[in-house]
Amino acid sequence: MAVYTPPLRDMQFVMHEMLNVTADLQAMPVHADMDADTINAVLEEGGKFATDVLLPLNISGDTEGCQLDITTHAVTTPTGYKAAYKQYIEGGWAALACDPAFGGQGLPLVVNQCFYEMMNSANQAWTMYPGLTHGAYAALHTHGTPEQKATYLHKMTSGEWTGTMCLTEPHCGTDLGLMRTKAEPQADGTYRITGNKIFISAGEHDLADNIIHLVLARLPDAPPGIKGVSLFIVPKFLVNADGSLGERNGIYCGGLEHKMGIKSNATAQIVLDGAVGTMVGQPNKGMQGMFVMMNAARLGVGNQSLGLTEVAFQNALAYAKDRIQMRSLTGPKAKDKPADPILVHPDVRKMLLTAKAYAEGGRALLCFSAMLLEKEHNHPDEKVRKDSGELLALLTPICKAFLTDNGHISTNACMQVFGGHGFIKEWGMEQFVRDNRINMIYEGTNTIQSLDLLGRKVLGNNGATLKKFGKLVGALVAEEGVNEKMAEFITPIAMLGEQMTKFTTEIGFKGFQNPDEVGSAAVDYLRVAGHLVFGYFWARMAQVALRQIAAGNTDPFYVAKLQTARFYFAKLFPETATAMRTARAGSKVLMDTDAALA
Amino acid sequence: MAVYTPPLRDMQFVMHEMLNVTADLQAMPVHADMDADTINAVLEEGGKFATDVLLPLNISGDTEGCQLDITTHAVTTPTGYKAAYKQYIEGGWAALACDPAFGGQGLPLVVNQCFYEMMNSANQAWTMYPGLTHGAYAALHTHGTPEQKATYLHKMTSGEWTGTMCLTEPHCGTDLGLMRTKAEPQADGTYRITGNKIFISAGEHDLADNIIHLVLARLPDAPPGIKGVSLFIVPKFLVNADGSLGERNGIYCGGLEHKMGIKSNATAQIVLDGAVGTMVGQPNKGMQGMFVMMNAARLGVGNQSLGLTEVAFQNALAYAKDRIQMRSLTGPKAKDKPADPILVHPDVRKMLLTAKAYAEGGRALLCFSAMLLEKEHNHPDEKVRKDSGELLALLTPICKAFLTDNGHISTNACMQVFGGHGFIKEWGMEQFVRDNRINMIYEGTNTIQSLDLLGRKVLGNNGATLKKFGKLVGALVAEEGVNEKMAEFITPIAMLGEQMTKFTTEIGFKGFQNPDEVGSAAVDYLRVAGHLVFGYFWARMAQVALRQIAAGNTDPFYVAKLQTARFYFAKLFPETATAMRTARAGSKVLMDTDAALA
Repeated sequence: MAVYTPPLRDMQFVMHEMLNVTADLQAMPVHADMDADTINAVLEEGGKFATDVLLPLNISGDTEGCQLDITTHAVTTPTGYKAAYKQYIEGGWAALACDPAFGGQGLPLVVNQCFYEMMNSANQAWTMYPGLTHGAYAALHTHGTPEQKATYLHKMTSGEWTGTMCLTEPHCGTDLGLMRTKAEPQADGTYRITGNKIFISAGEHDLADNIIHLVLARLPDAPPGIKGVSLFIVPKFLVNADGSLGERNGIYCGGLEHKMGIKSNATAQIVLDGAVGTMVGQPNKGMQGMFVMMNAARLGVGNQSLGLTEVAFQNALAYAKDRIQMRSLTGPKAKDKPADPILVHPDVRKMLLTAKAYAEGGRALLCFSAMLLEKEHNHPDEKVRKDSGELLALLTPICKAFLTDNGHISTNACMQVFGGHGFIKEWGMEQFVRDNRINMIYEGTNTIQSLDLLGRKVLGNNGATLKKFGKLVGALVAEEGVNEKMAEFITPIAMLGEQMTKFTTEIGFKGFQNPDEVGSAAVDYLRVAGHLVFGYFWARMAQVALRQIAAGNTDPFYVAKLQTARFYFAKLFPETATAMRTARAGSKVLMDTDAALA
Repeated sequence: MAVYTPPLRDMQFVMHEMLNVTADLQAMPVHADMDADTINAVLEEGGKFATDVLLPLNISGDTEGCQLDITTHAVTTPTGYKAAYKQYIEGGWAALACDPAFGGQGLPLVVNQCFYEMMNSANQAWTMYPGLTHGAYAALHTHGTPEQKATYLHKMTSGEWTGTMCLTEPHCGTDLGLMRTKAEPQADGTYRITGNKIFISAGEHDLADNIIHLVLARLPDAPPGIKGVSLFIVPKFLVNADGSLGERNGIYCGGLEHKMGIKSNATAQIVLDGAVGTMVGQPNKGMQGMFVMMNAARLGVGNQSLGLTEVAFQNALAYAKDRIQMRSLTGPKAKDKPADPILVHPDVRKMLLTAKAYAEGGRALLCFSAMLLEKEHNHPDEKVRKDSGELLALLTPICKAFLTDNGHISTNACMQVFGGHGFIKEWGMEQFVRDNRINMIYEGTNTIQSLDLLGRKVLGNNGATLKKFGKLVGALVAEEGVNEKMAEFITPIAMLGEQMTKFTTEIGFKGFQNPDEVGSAAVDYLRVAGHLVFGYFWARMAQVALRQIAAGNTDPFYVAKLQTARFYFAKLFPETATAMRTARAGSKVLMDTDAALA
């Protein structure tokens, strides 16, 4: 079985030493009383829940999978999943960051972010059951009517009911404009919804009394394409006026997918057979509500890969210390043993440090992003709200695509540390690779994320938002530019920042003449932008570490942070050299290939 | 179910138009009568066997897996595997490239290479059953006594008996010097062997009447480490003097591994309980015989990833033509449809072309390598034999590691083309990823391959062998240096060739002072060397295509080849920029990390 120790120290470092979140939180009325001790105490308990309750179910859940009884349409989750979910509700974990108006505890989003990271490390597939609920909660909280909120949000906050997002159909994934599911208005103001959805995560299960599906469908008179899509609440069980459960609604699980990973999460084919729903928001404006959910989910998917990167690293490090095999190239190190621990080998260290640098960089970015989301909603200053929202919009595709690609690289590297044992199920390493693989696909493939970043978020406003991030980099460069000890961290990001400006202008110009230039450069562009962002956070982390060391702090944590920062800039950051070169190679070599792709 | 069309046209191109193999073969007495028609006809039939017999069993075999009856130690392979193996024997496929002295057909190794590529595309896990036999056959053919050859080789040639290689033990994988299995000499000249082996591919099954295990073990007086390891033949059933099967030997399957992929190949834990064996070669020189097998197996593993890269490409291309989703960025292309085929999107093309360029480059390299192996053994000129062997030794770690890493990149890219459907088992794409994943690990991890390349094959003789390959590049550059049409293909390899010389000298110098510099640079170095080799073959393929087009040949095959070559140099080859930079970043950032990896 895999091992896992919640990275509480690093979370505290990111929140309290680098981002100073309590000061930011206390500036918001809803968090005026928040302090570091509360945050740390909650996360310490959250880490125990993840480690004690969820981790032991990860491999067994993958082996057992979910079972569908096709006659009753009931789905049974693996042994122990239901009991774990009961503990989750009873511990109040579902309500952590929810609105107190609906029974929530009102803790900051950054706390929920860190709690979910730990649950993802322990068991991504289980964590998707409550995780999807958060997205549905957020969409209803933003766009639901008071009546809808009163009916659903208390039970979703408590976790007694879970949520889903029903978008995809067999013929439409990325292109939701092709959607066919129909919603027929009824005399009582409700709708009767009919159609087939696929790939519905947590779409059916035995963990909760009710499932609140948020379903995209078309009204009879809807215009074609994405502008004719509306959003509906379709509960598994209708809810009576007194809040009790009523009739079973016409929404069923018609099948479960057999997948590469996240096998214990029920990926359901959902059949809507005249199911009763109520509309959320305005007719034909369904994507507005769905985007609240999708943006939350994109950050959440990045967080899934952060969790897997961290747990893969921890296990590979433990193995590399324990496994003895061959001698160090510079002579025996463990002379009392027949061979040295494989940790002495440079490439083993490279594989481990890759995961460590990507995990810690990802944690910094996601905590920063959670604070932006918090400020966007809760900051008293309108300009801060607006700026935070815009910066978060820029960072969201990076959180999703960069972190999930990094998770792919990292989980595979950590599996490789185990040699042949990495390929064997009982060690748990290959499952991290399989579970991570979906993160690069769902909630918008990583190609879609890159087009969102380059086409919409960067070129869409002529680089204005990118400049906002550039200002953060510029401020750090200005602050530390004369500090010799920081030069090794500042020089690369200052240089890349300048290159990015030129690079972006170049692509924008070429894309103006030929939009395929944008499509050809986007994936490379996202990798470069991701490294600018990670480089910025690694420089800030190094800054904190250097200051602590200069002040006489002898905690080896800071030395470790500097070593990892140096590794990051030396061995991972230079990926930008190739990515800029291949992006600049343009679209012609891709598009003039009809013979090759005949 | 996955689709597959044997790439016969491209194999013919590589063999007959680029390498001109028949002329080379005819120079060898054993192949004096060989001609292109024979080669093509055999491969056409071989492609049918792969497609008609093996492909339909690939997904079902993965789902069903192998079953061990622990009371009888018998392993049952998935439904259809035994019947397919019977067809394989009856078709004479096992004997294809074997020595006619033992009933083989004596066809060139390059034919076997292409045949195995197709079998790997269709079903890697099944193909490992006969594949392992080839390695055992080669070791016995080279190092066995006349009596051992007479006893075993006819039945292994016919495929009636299969072979294995039993190296790994629970505590020793890479480091075979730690081996514990013991061999006690007996009065009759045989040995009684006792110990535990793990990860034995095709280690037990129901396909053949007997299994000939080649087992590494220690004699009682053996010196410690790798110089105390001897090689033994340990048949599952002892063989009587008349060649009939005798007593069941004390070698049993004690368990099967549950793995990420190649699930239908039995990865056996093998218990030797005083099993009777005979020694192959000299006492304590077991690695000599085993290296014959391992070198063959390393080429074979590269070929497994070539097969998976090709079949993944074909399926992703078919899907990209069929699946409609979104419009082209430059305006609708399939105006009669509600969306365009996803083939219009630049990044989809990039993912497809990545796999295509890696498959075709890999095919060129492996066919070239098979010809080197043929010349090493069968060429009448001693200098050609020696040079071929040395060049092959240089290329072997590249064939193994570069091709399997490329297979990882390619199968993942092709899976990504399918979006969510790529994650679903029934489409077959995720299985290609899972099956390929072991290829980066077994037969020496890719890190070990990189150390073999840089430490032993390059620096071990001060770059002498690398210069041999450099001469091939230099000759092509000299030949085509003034041809303007070839400049786009010649310039990059000429430049990289020069950079490699400097780069190699630099690492050699640093490594002389600190061996960890070699260990730190090796993986990057192998990627750079791999691209020099691929760049060379892509330039040669472009050369052939340009000449055909100049001569008026209108076959679109040649246009496709040029388009793929251009893509390769523009989008894949520039990986060398980052790899050289990260290699040059040195060992200090890896080794000064004790705090980070505490």
